[in-house]
Amino acid sequence: MSFTSSPASSAADAALQAEVQQFYAWQMHLLDDGEADAWAETFTEDGVFAANAHPEPARGRETIRTAAAKAAAQRAEEGIQVRHWLGMLDVRPQEDGSVVALSYALIVNTPLGGSPQVHLSTTCRDVLVRGENGGWLVRDRQVKRDDLA
Amino acid sequence: MSFTSSPASSAADAALQAEVQQFYAWQMHLLDDGEADAWAETFTEDGVFAANAHPEPARGRETIRTAAAKAAAQRAEEGIQVRHWLGMLDVRPQEDGSVVALSYALIVNTPLGGSPQVHLSTTCRDVLVRGENGGWLVRDRQVKRDDLA
Amino acid sequence: MSFTSSPASSAADAALQAEVQQFYAWQMHLLDDGEADAWAETFTEDGVFAANAHPEPARGRETIRTAAAKAAAQRAEEGIQVRHWLGMLDVRPQEDGSVVALSYALIVNTPLGGSPQVHLSTTCRDVLVRGENGGWLVRDRQVKRDDLA
Repeated sequence: MSFTSSPASSAADAALQAEVQQFYAWQMHLLDDGEADAWAETFTEDGVFAANAHPEPARGRETIRTAAAKAAAQRAEEGIQVRHWLGMLDVRPQEDGSVVALSYALIVNTPLGGSPQVHLSTTCRDVLVRGENGGWLVRDRQVKRDDLA
Repeated sequence: MSFTSSPASSAADAALQAEVQQFYAWQMHLLDDGEADAWAETFTEDGVFAANAHPEPARGRETIRTAAAKAAAQRAEEGIQVRHWLGMLDVRPQEDGSVVALSYALIVNTPLGGSPQVHLSTTCRDVLVRGENGGWLVRDRQVKRDDLA
Repeated sequence: MSFTSSPASSAADAALQAEVQQFYAWQMHLLDDGEADAWAETFTEDGVFAANAHPEPARGRETIRTAAAKAAAQRAEEGIQVRHWLGMLDVRPQEDGSVVALSYALIVNTPLGGSPQVHLSTTCRDVLVRGENGGWLVRDRQVKRDDLA
């Protein structure tokens, strides 16, 4: 990644920063609580979830919902509480009204009766668009695990 | 936890997000610096601190102060620097002027001369109210460790 | 560190919080991407980077640039992706227009093909000033590793 533009400095950009953080908090709570239906609703109908750990991107809400439900069931069976931490969020408003959001993410796993482990460190590049109710939706997500080439 | 409401999207909500983050930074610095008196002042006089790791909640500033002072003394004796990280903050303004703040917390312990350890992963549910000077105070805190059922 | 002042509570302070977070995200992405030139430009020409792990502070952009380039080359050789996480940010506007920013930082290292490790836990005390383009620059940074006395 190359970062050559200036940092945002207007009040509007600052408000956007806080707003996107609120969105991510809400979205990650849904994921970690296993709320696969509500999680899928935070993507656009044709939303894409790509990851360098997966051979093919997940395309569309239904696929994203199914993947989240499956992962939640597996974690419940294993007795593991997952927490997704996003941070170091760089928010870049685009001319078409969308937002490119660049962030880091840590996945912290805690087994029942055990100690938390930092399972993965990744970057996340999102394209966010406004939904009908004014809130943000993910149109495109690209997750890159730091341990993979 | 179930999250069914929409994410906040107004400028006021965005400003609140940043303001509550500032409060938590200030509060956690106090805790980790062992400033038990000033820490206790960030709760209301009748503030409650409940945790699924404790049989009974701590009730009132005096109890909260005593518990913090005891924990600080123990950490100093063990030569451990504790850092409380709050993140993934979902701020929900209530009709009565209070705020429900849902967050994740990591406790990172670093022994003198050693490596940092992610000691605990928890969730935190706060009810915040405005104090006389306009700043936020915790009226009710519920901490749930992820490793406990 | 002692924190005795009240937490910031105005809308302006809240906007500043978000703005400084945006700056740090941008700055840390540069560092972790090995963009030593752009990283050095986030300090003032006479910027100082002091750390309790180093016998002498780095003084001036050129010194800061050289140190970052060297560290980036070494990490690339070792196959380690470093991520700097700043958080628990307490932003304090000063009368002269500068900002004192107190934060925590974690350094998370991920080797190619391996698991992430929380390498270091530190505090960071910055003095930030506005650059010619309106963005923030670091005039003085003091990093304290929690594992050192």
